[in-house]
Amino acid sequence: MKELTKEQQAELERQISLYQNGVVETIPENELRDKVERSIQTGMPLKIKLGLDPTAPDVHLGHTVVLNKLKQFQENGHIIQLIIGDFTGKIGDPTGKSTVRKQLTDEDVKVNAQTYFEQFGRVLDMEKVELFYNSEWLTPLNLEDVIRLSSSITVARLIERNDFSNRIATGKPISLHEFFYPLMQGYDSVALESDIELGGTDQHFNVLMGRHLQEHYGKEKQVVMLLPLLEGLDGVDKMSKSKHNYIGIDEPPNEIFGKTMSIPDELIVKYFNLVTDLPLEEKQKISAGLADETLHPRDAKVRLARTIVSMFHGEEAAAAAVEHFQTVFQKGALPEDIPSVEWKGASEVAIIELLVGLGMQSSKSEARRMIKNGGIRIDGEKVLDTEMLVSVTDGIIVQVGKRKFVRVKV
Amino acid sequence: MKELTKEQQAELERQISLYQNGVVETIPENELRDKVERSIQTGMPLKIKLGLDPTAPDVHLGHTVVLNKLKQFQENGHIIQLIIGDFTGKIGDPTGKSTVRKQLTDEDVKVNAQTYFEQFGRVLDMEKVELFYNSEWLTPLNLEDVIRLSSSITVARLIERNDFSNRIATGKPISLHEFFYPLMQGYDSVALESDIELGGTDQHFNVLMGRHLQEHYGKEKQVVMLLPLLEGLDGVDKMSKSKHNYIGIDEPPNEIFGKTMSIPDELIVKYFNLVTDLPLEEKQKISAGLADETLHPRDAKVRLARTIVSMFHGEEAAAAAVEHFQTVFQKGALPEDIPSVEWKGASEVAIIELLVGLGMQSSKSEARRMIKNGGIRIDGEKVLDTEMLVSVTDGIIVQVGKRKFVRVKV
Repeated sequence: MKELTKEQQAELERQISLYQNGVVETIPENELRDKVERSIQTGMPLKIKLGLDPTAPDVHLGHTVVLNKLKQFQENGHIIQLIIGDFTGKIGDPTGKSTVRKQLTDEDVKVNAQTYFEQFGRVLDMEKVELFYNSEWLTPLNLEDVIRLSSSITVARLIERNDFSNRIATGKPISLHEFFYPLMQGYDSVALESDIELGGTDQHFNVLMGRHLQEHYGKEKQVVMLLPLLEGLDGVDKMSKSKHNYIGIDEPPNEIFGKTMSIPDELIVKYFNLVTDLPLEEKQKISAGLADETLHPRDAKVRLARTIVSMFHGEEAAAAAVEHFQTVFQKGALPEDIPSVEWKGASEVAIIELLVGLGMQSSKSEARRMIKNGGIRIDGEKVLDTEMLVSVTDGIIVQVGKRKFVRVKV
Repeated sequence: MKELTKEQQAELERQISLYQNGVVETIPENELRDKVERSIQTGMPLKIKLGLDPTAPDVHLGHTVVLNKLKQFQENGHIIQLIIGDFTGKIGDPTGKSTVRKQLTDEDVKVNAQTYFEQFGRVLDMEKVELFYNSEWLTPLNLEDVIRLSSSITVARLIERNDFSNRIATGKPISLHEFFYPLMQGYDSVALESDIELGGTDQHFNVLMGRHLQEHYGKEKQVVMLLPLLEGLDGVDKMSKSKHNYIGIDEPPNEIFGKTMSIPDELIVKYFNLVTDLPLEEKQKISAGLADETLHPRDAKVRLARTIVSMFHGEEAAAAAVEHFQTVFQKGALPEDIPSVEWKGASEVAIIELLVGLGMQSSKSEARRMIKNGGIRIDGEKVLDTEMLVSVTDGIIVQVGKRKFVRVKV
């Protein structure tokens, strides 16, 4: 290869520092540099792979960590390969024991892929994305191919995988077919000749498998880039649908805004870094402001929430969400800790039923009186109609008088 | 089912005690009884499976243990299913590391199967045997089939297999594809709906796999019958080609006879029981005679050797072998312990070269003189031609004068 020109050298350094920012580990770093360098010299884009589970198409902020990284590659002319893991989805759980991994039809898979497509479109330019279904190359494999594939890996190495060694330690059975899931994911990289695969740090083993198998099949090995996991609203567990601690990117602006305001202060900087697309210097300024206390956490959070809403719903919606939040919560001076009360009744209910049902009023007549006196608010808005029907959704705030608040949990 | 008639009941008992004789373990015994009972009632024969390695077609006495058992089933009208494991043979060793498991061509497999067929024909009626190649049902399996197949078994259960746990204990790697060999062997029973599978006790895990997989695929489960392993001529290791301690059933009568005479006395009864087709009472009589010393071990061995030669070469050849043995060894009064000398020269050599090369004569002229004097014998036969060419095969006895003997080892 020829030497790089000065301009090319500068471009190489710019891309590398952009891609490396926020990444936990790049395996190995020198190959990332080699690939980007070659791409600059030849003008050939790199192929950046992301594998997707076909069963859980609800995209939340946790996904945006990797989507933002993909966007950086895309904006520099590289090709994004999204792979829907429909092969495993269509098999379901062959033991029939798990209801979670139920068998998907072709129709289910298409619908789920469409959902990904629409939601990812809020971050990526989907016209330039290459979409694949891995059943295309996994369905034709026969027993002989499978034996060659599995001859590439030892049982000990598979057991090393964290999940498997935990299960062996606790005596929980591992069915042999489970060993195939990482192999299939790895084989996707062989089929697509990916240059780089992205994944969360919890995907360490699976994404390295692609590199391993490419070598076994005599292909150029992909570089693996591991991204940090985003904690959910509870500040403890990884954000996920099953933990109910997520912010869906498809949720309404006020919902995203309110949920973002509820994250623990310690996560503010991490959310800025991983979720938002603010320039690096801006992120550093906010982090410094919080550290030396020139920036109040509440103000930082408003900035964060506004930025996130703006990413998925645009600037206008973001401004409206700020306005709404300030009207309802700040101007009304909501207390810091509002008790949650679970609502098990109908999702549409008369205001009087709701007040009594939540235990905020002892009788219907008392409730009716309080409404007439203007003492009842829902999400900060006064209720004056005693016959009003309330749509009970998770998180609505019911207020009686000046000091009695309840957050409804559905 | 109807009750058995008295005659049927007697027939059931007769067959069961015949089949159970000499078997180490039947899993489970009650199902063997059920299957035989049903066969007697319906007149439908049982299907008795034996799997064969396509790479090692040299049949020796060790194989006759299971062949004799198959013969018992065959003589009672049941169907023998011989399965050539050509699928694995044609794959070879996908890691390319083992030269032992080299890839076989279709032609190799056919030739090897033919060899089995001819040699098994010395014990079984091959016209009634059903011969299968397992590539027939293993080649069409695709990845989805493989995943369903492997979902039936846990990793822990596979590791339990003696060979695997030893290798894990000693840190020797197990490649994932090796887990498939027992599964494929077991799947053969699914494809053929076998009723009974025979195997040596060292095949315990593999033959039980057939039973396990038949259940997984909703078929009637096969009964597993484990037969004892026959020690080789050394009386220590299992008889096998690789240990050079075997008697091939294709060897010439005098060879079989001589080798049989060389087994340790402790194995005489076992060889009678496992290898010969003598009636049960006869075997018991011999065993009793040896126990109370009314039968000399040497005489018992002559009977054993004669019986074995007769099984594979007929009664006439057996009588000739006895005659030969007595002429050469007993009438010539061979000493009990003849030293072995290894011969590394050509397989055809002048008698004088041989005598000097073995160190039995110090010079060619001395050797020539001794021949002329009638002092040289090979396998008991006097050599008078000083130019004679000797075919040097393993075990020939070279004698100089009355007291100098050497057993040639090739």
